[in-house]
Amino acid sequence: MTSRPVLTFWYEFASTYSYPAAMRIDDMARAAGVDVIWRPFLLGPVALQQQGWTDSIFNTIPAKGRYMWRDLERICAAEGLAFNRPPIFPQNTLLATRIAHLGEAEAWIAPFSRAVYEANFAHGHDISDPDVLSRILHRFGLNAGEVISRAQDRRNKDSLKARSEEALAHDIFGAPSFVAKGELFWGFDRLPQALAWALKD
Amino acid sequence: MTSRPVLTFWYEFASTYSYPAAMRIDDMARAAGVDVIWRPFLLGPVALQQQGWTDSIFNTIPAKGRYMWRDLERICAAEGLAFNRPPIFPQNTLLATRIAHLGEAEAWIAPFSRAVYEANFAHGHDISDPDVLSRILHRFGLNAGEVISRAQDRRNKDSLKARSEEALAHDIFGAPSFVAKGELFWGFDRLPQALAWALKD
Repeated sequence: MTSRPVLTFWYEFASTYSYPAAMRIDDMARAAGVDVIWRPFLLGPVALQQQGWTDSIFNTIPAKGRYMWRDLERICAAEGLAFNRPPIFPQNTLLATRIAHLGEAEAWIAPFSRAVYEANFAHGHDISDPDVLSRILHRFGLNAGEVISRAQDRRNKDSLKARSEEALAHDIFGAPSFVAKGELFWGFDRLPQALAWALKD
Repeated sequence: MTSRPVLTFWYEFASTYSYPAAMRIDDMARAAGVDVIWRPFLLGPVALQQQGWTDSIFNTIPAKGRYMWRDLERICAAEGLAFNRPPIFPQNTLLATRIAHLGEAEAWIAPFSRAVYEANFAHGHDISDPDVLSRILHRFGLNAGEVISRAQDRRNKDSLKARSEEALAHDIFGAPSFVAKGELFWGFDRLPQALAWALKD
């Protein structure tokens, strides 16, 4: 029995280019015959430790920010994705990421994550709001109160913290990042190359 | 008579992703039916004014640098371009850029620029060395001494300085950048989209 090729998808809910990646990766991977491991993580602690940054470079360098928003708008138009520039950027993604981390081994991680991205980048909702996250969890038939409570268990919180260390060990410095056979790819525009790498002999 | 679509190609000789862009843009633009305006500029003054940066982000954030060199290696392999990580990064590109600026209206600007990129990213030469640049100029049948002397005229130097102001006015923050019909695209990976934009009605 040969195992199917695998791609690990590292994403941060506040990350703008992670939005099209999250919306498209499952379809693109299915077409390529690659399995996707969804790996939510908090980019903030990674950026702080690696770069000393406490805010997004898209805020600290306004010209870069203006470009990114326009570029993202063009990408979403090309991919047929709804897009509205969110009123808050970057959002506080701690609770959403803890929930997604709890769901890593569950079937709902991908649809939950896509719904959080749509709430952020299509509907302009505050994704740090437990009510917003509860409504999304309900939509997938989950007991939101119980999930949110378990997401904030020490064990889940510590396990998510370890993901930032793991990201640093992979030399990940941004999101979305893709890892295939030890090779790192960064950015939605590198997703086709990452899938091709996963298929290499 | 309708005018042909045009793309302005802003490049910096020290910029790593400008290398594949410089090597491929004329062929890709020809295939698309787009004319290219080669526009060399100094990214240093732009980055300093806009970002407060005095060194490349690929040096100041080592994980980002390691990724970029590997990514560039993969791109060059895919594009069939020779690549050897240069011993000096970023190189001092003042003289090379002054020469290229002098040649903006001349037929030699594209082949000269490609040769400077190859000297930097394929052959590991010091492109701040007037002898290296002279040999390239000779190759294109130019009087190197005369060109280098004219490149350092006050008029040419001031005119090149004005290009950095023009870059800032276009909201350019990196290289390679492409401008088509007032729309900005950044990075070699956006060249196909930039060409498509140039062709829009």
